[in-house]
Amino acid sequence: MPATQAETTAMERALSLAARGPKGVNPQVGAVILSPTGEVISEGWHHGAGTAHAEVDALSRLPEGSARGATAVVSLEPCNHTGRTGPCSRALLEAGVARVVYAVADPGDTSSGGAAWLRAAGVDIEPGVLADAGTRLLDSWLTVQRLGRPHVTVKWAQSLDGRAAADDGTSRWITGPAAREDVHRRRAEADVIAAGIGTVLADDPALTARTPEGALREHQPIPLILGRREIPDDAAVRSHPRPFLHRRGHDLSAVLAELSDLGVHCVFVEGGPTLASAFVRAGLADEMLAYLAPVLLGGGRLALDDIGVSTIRDARRLRTVSVDLLGDDLRVIARPAATAEPTKGE
Amino acid sequence: MPATQAETTAMERALSLAARGPKGVNPQVGAVILSPTGEVISEGWHHGAGTAHAEVDALSRLPEGSARGATAVVSLEPCNHTGRTGPCSRALLEAGVARVVYAVADPGDTSSGGAAWLRAAGVDIEPGVLADAGTRLLDSWLTVQRLGRPHVTVKWAQSLDGRAAADDGTSRWITGPAAREDVHRRRAEADVIAAGIGTVLADDPALTARTPEGALREHQPIPLILGRREIPDDAAVRSHPRPFLHRRGHDLSAVLAELSDLGVHCVFVEGGPTLASAFVRAGLADEMLAYLAPVLLGGGRLALDDIGVSTIRDARRLRTVSVDLLGDDLRVIARPAATAEPTKGE
Ligand SMILES: NC(=O)c1ccc[n+]([C@@H]2O[C@H](COP(=O)([O-])OP(=O)(O)OC[C@H]3O[C@@H](n4cnc5c(N)ncnc54)[C@H](OP(=O)(O)O)[C@@H]3O)[C@@H](O)[C@H]2O)c1
Ligand SMILES: NC(=O)c1ccc[n+]([C@@H]2O[C@H](COP(=O)([O-])OP(=O)(O)OC[C@H]3O[C@@H](n4cnc5c(N)ncnc54)[C@H](OP(=O)(O)O)[C@@H]3O)[C@@H](O)[C@H]2O)c1
Repeated sequence: MPATQAETTAMERALSLAARGPKGVNPQVGAVILSPTGEVISEGWHHGAGTAHAEVDALSRLPEGSARGATAVVSLEPCNHTGRTGPCSRALLEAGVARVVYAVADPGDTSSGGAAWLRAAGVDIEPGVLADAGTRLLDSWLTVQRLGRPHVTVKWAQSLDGRAAADDGTSRWITGPAAREDVHRRRAEADVIAAGIGTVLADDPALTARTPEGALREHQPIPLILGRREIPDDAAVRSHPRPFLHRRGHDLSAVLAELSDLGVHCVFVEGGPTLASAFVRAGLADEMLAYLAPVLLGGGRLALDDIGVSTIRDARRLRTVSVDLLGDDLRVIARPAATAEPTKGE
Repeated sequence: MPATQAETTAMERALSLAARGPKGVNPQVGAVILSPTGEVISEGWHHGAGTAHAEVDALSRLPEGSARGATAVVSLEPCNHTGRTGPCSRALLEAGVARVVYAVADPGDTSSGGAAWLRAAGVDIEPGVLADAGTRLLDSWLTVQRLGRPHVTVKWAQSLDGRAAADDGTSRWITGPAAREDVHRRRAEADVIAAGIGTVLADDPALTARTPEGALREHQPIPLILGRREIPDDAAVRSHPRPFLHRRGHDLSAVLAELSDLGVHCVFVEGGPTLASAFVRAGLADEMLAYLAPVLLGGGRLALDDIGVSTIRDARRLRTVSVDLLGDDLRVIARPAATAEPTKGE
């Protein structure tokens, strides 16, 4: 039976409850319990890892037995696995819930199947209600589920001819203020900002997200420095509003796995060339964000160096997502092209 | 006195007569002689270097004395210098012409001043009639006058990260069919297509302008090979519909001066990296035409190498003329930024 008006309204509410929970390892989920006549009798949301899931949170606020014949409206498909909290599917059934309406299917290998299990147990199921809004809310968490690791954006600024700096290492500024502001805005949307130790030693970047006036933006990504060498005692990153992470190993997959466990959804890799190339080479760059300045530099300081391509057949083909002029600079956003895509003739 | 309707109509005719002459060292010029009552009594045009100028050509078709009191309508200001043909200004005065109407001022150092000389001699002068159409007709010739040499477009194709080929030298194809077709269309608009001997030896290019089906386009640029090494006996360029030029010296200004003398207006530099960089380094690249493919290559085969920039202050700043998507590729057209332009902060 398609969702009633009361159920759709309840889903809107569930989505706004969901947003109260923290982003992190677990998804943000909200739940609303409706009586058989469509009255809201309880609400709940997931408060973060280790706490009750949204459905259980909502049920727990009801007197024993009062959910019999009720409808549970949940922003994510009830889970089916016994984690720290027991499966939500069983809790709903045991409470006597007669119908479950949800927005987004659970993408997890171990946690999914809750809807099917409930349907087999005789519960009426309506999936996909306000699915788009639900997917938007969970966007970065769903990406982490799909990739099995955080989403990685690799950013670089280059001259039209692909240089990150002039031959003597000077690079301030290749790109203009509009491009730099765009970078800071995007830093503020990331959970982690990563830089190689080479850049830290050469440029001493603050790795903060700032407004054009130089003020700190509200959200600051966690700075992550990669590389064996030591971070100087007076490095600017030590004054970052959030404590920095320093990982010495060069195994980027291992670093990303650790970040996943910390609840990180998106990593913004800010360079330099060696680290950016390492991410591309490892196939761990989900999005390339290249700012191209209308300038030629020549010389040996390349924005990308060894990305593991030796012949044209192995070229890293990209799919261009967008091309925009920011001031005088060109911003190109691209993703790896589907690997099945044929190369362009010979 | 502003141009009459009869004079404007005569100028349209003069412009179409002008277009009958060849492009080359001399400008294309047309002339119409109107009687004092506004009747067309003669026409002429410049048939090419060493032949009569348009005004003299038109006057020569008239019986002695019949231009007395007439109006000469000419697409370019009458010249004032004694070349192979004597100054047109004096010829017009001696024929008794009472008024001269022209479209475009003569930009030449030695040849200009004809209008002022005639005015001082009492001839009525009306400049700038259909000036835009006249300028369009003479566009590339005027550019040669302004630069003192042919106009140079330096074209290259690169990966987003600035490589012209993969590390093993393979480069077919970095860009897609739409970009390649655009290149062939532009080849057909050039007088000369230049390539370095390195590219001839590596790729054996035909240096012809072809349609997507592979047919030769109507106009073919003259192929010019630059470099000391020999062109192989079986090189494809030897089968070009137009005989090729081979210049061994590396002095690009000298080569361009020679091309000017041959009547060349536009040179299309097709690579490779060494030659393109040499043109940029010498400040002889009037237009950069870069095709950027959505692909990353890394490695050492750069589209531009040493362009003579060692520090960011000396960066070759460009002014972007246009950015367009051609198929999956980005075409960036840029010109050197005005040198007076301040660099973007420090
Ligand atoms: N144009 C731009 O967008 C941009 C951005 C940032 C920096 N830059 C410029 O880039 C220059 C610094 O370049 P860089 O390449 O030396 O800096 P980098 O990429 O920041 O640092 C490279 C270092 O990172 C460490 N590292 C960590 N994980 C690695 C891995 N998986 N693979 C390889 N190395 C790894 C290594 O140091 P250890 O050997 O100590 O482990 C390596 O030497 C500066 O001049 C800076 O101005 C430009
Ligand atoms: N992606 C692209 O758009 C594109 C286009 C063309 C070629 N390519 C690739 O580029 C590679 C060839 O590169 P390349 O750099 O060797 O080729 P190149 O630029 O075509 O030729 C370089 C040679 O030109 C001669 N030359 C003439 N005038 C010069 C000057 N003013 N300064 C310096 N050299 C001058 C020199 O040869 P001498 O020492 O004999 O005088 C020099 O070695 C090939 O692999 C080809 O596939 C790519």
